[in-house]
Amino acid sequence: MAKEFVVGVDIGGQTSKIGVVDVHGEILAQSVIRSDIYGSDASAYIEALAKAVEECIAAAGKTNDDIRGVGVGAPNGNYYTGDVAFAPNLAWAADSAVHLKAELSRALGGLPVTVTNDANAAALGEMTYGAAKGMKDFIMITLGTGVGSGIVIDGKVVYGHDGFAGELGHTTAVRNNGRMCGCGRAGCLEAYCSAMGIARTAREWLAATDEPSLLRDLENITSKDIYDAAKKGDAFSLRVFEYTGTLLGRSFAEFIAFSAPEAIVLFGGLARAKEFLFEPMQKAMNDNVLRIWKGKVKIIFSSLKENDAAILGASALAW
Amino acid sequence: MAKEFVVGVDIGGQTSKIGVVDVHGEILAQSVIRSDIYGSDASAYIEALAKAVEECIAAAGKTNDDIRGVGVGAPNGNYYTGDVAFAPNLAWAADSAVHLKAELSRALGGLPVTVTNDANAAALGEMTYGAAKGMKDFIMITLGTGVGSGIVIDGKVVYGHDGFAGELGHTTAVRNNGRMCGCGRAGCLEAYCSAMGIARTAREWLAATDEPSLLRDLENITSKDIYDAAKKGDAFSLRVFEYTGTLLGRSFAEFIAFSAPEAIVLFGGLARAKEFLFEPMQKAMNDNVLRIWKGKVKIIFSSLKENDAAILGASALAW
Repeated sequence: MAKEFVVGVDIGGQTSKIGVVDVHGEILAQSVIRSDIYGSDASAYIEALAKAVEECIAAAGKTNDDIRGVGVGAPNGNYYTGDVAFAPNLAWAADSAVHLKAELSRALGGLPVTVTNDANAAALGEMTYGAAKGMKDFIMITLGTGVGSGIVIDGKVVYGHDGFAGELGHTTAVRNNGRMCGCGRAGCLEAYCSAMGIARTAREWLAATDEPSLLRDLENITSKDIYDAAKKGDAFSLRVFEYTGTLLGRSFAEFIAFSAPEAIVLFGGLARAKEFLFEPMQKAMNDNVLRIWKGKVKIIFSSLKENDAAILGASALAW
Repeated sequence: MAKEFVVGVDIGGQTSKIGVVDVHGEILAQSVIRSDIYGSDASAYIEALAKAVEECIAAAGKTNDDIRGVGVGAPNGNYYTGDVAFAPNLAWAADSAVHLKAELSRALGGLPVTVTNDANAAALGEMTYGAAKGMKDFIMITLGTGVGSGIVIDGKVVYGHDGFAGELGHTTAVRNNGRMCGCGRAGCLEAYCSAMGIARTAREWLAATDEPSLLRDLENITSKDIYDAAKKGDAFSLRVFEYTGTLLGRSFAEFIAFSAPEAIVLFGGLARAKEFLFEPMQKAMNDNVLRIWKGKVKIIFSSLKENDAAILGASALAW
């Protein structure tokens, strides 16, 4: 019998989402477990995850025989080794390499398991079910707590020599006196254009000037606060978005010189601020890109529902 | 009968080199014609080229039946369209798109012709016969009059959505007050790290200071002059190389975040200055690259004889 279903698992710092998915990207059943209550005990986490996967398959009215495989998107997940290694936000994988592919497969009675990082999973999800359906060359940029990327060339995700390709959040957006990034480098795109980065911009600018802003009343500014203020017409917050969009667009111009993609596809919490980011992003991209690509590369926003996208992306790995 | 030979054609601004090549990269016969005496008459050039190719096949003691195909490396050559379009250094293709693949194939009685740009051809040459033999993921950087690049991922040259991928010479090496590049952008790697670029650095620095240097006696400084002076221990010229190598290494760190290559492979006139470029290049790359790649990506120099490499690279296209 044809195995016409897959399981997608999206591992995040706080929760892991599980879904059983059909070929059309329909999620038949889904569930969530905590990722953050196992301390450094990777075996306990994997046991709980396997149990949740089995329950989810049962809830969808299926058995293991119906399942082609399990795709897992995880921070620092490596496609070649199947490991999740040195992932700062996962206590059970923060200081070592966890053989997630092998151990989860064993716990699931031999179901094939494929692992990659969350941004590559997002790229696969867009290509299989979303905004990049039918595209063979695009770059997925995830604007969340960090900035991730998944690069698709000729219909395939680029893993590189060692499985770690596509770290575009850690290319240099600001060369002179760039901000320190969590990765140890200075001036990374992630230090400016993630949810954390845009909040840093706002806080730095507020400290450096006396300009009035709705943000001045707040204790701890988040990207959501900046978005809400921009919505209310706060000029300061609008400029923060303009700056952020400009840095993104300028970086896109560099990325295009590498792989000449048809589109840049954006996803993630900060991408919800499309109305404030899109224009400066597109202008900076076209102002800075080599002449042959001016006006030619699309910037598109994910069409997948945010809650489903991570599961769908991971599930796409398993086809 | 097996077609065990290919023809490589390297089209440059002044000359076009032709060679008949076997599977081992042995050049059985070669010849050269001028590229620059046909004005805007593309047909006349293609006719002369086809004649030279046929004579070269005959000189190798072969006939068209022995030839699997003809590979052509040309400035702005496009793999998908087979065109050479808007190539500033080729008068017959400077203002239009010349259908080189189709027209050369017709002039050669239907022999298959494949076209790509010179840097992609160089990458194929290294992979087929040279320093990158056996590698599946590497980035070829050609340091000549300009800076070109050919990117190989999973054993295949990256052409991108439109056939123009791999313009790493036109990524930004210097962001603030970067030099104008011939392409219209500012701060391009090519404006600093090509043969032209390093000469610009020397001239700028000489004009800005009174520092003594062997270069002060020269009328029109070339990259060769800087190399010769460095060989004699000229401290100024040594610093020019150190700066150039540092900018290259810093850019390599950005490229690695994209495709996680096994190696960066260097080729071209300026790459002959390995003794002065290698150390600052390697240091800057490892200082700037994301932690997971520190000390892991090799920088290697082409092992192909410079005169043969362009023909071999183009010929590798035809296998």
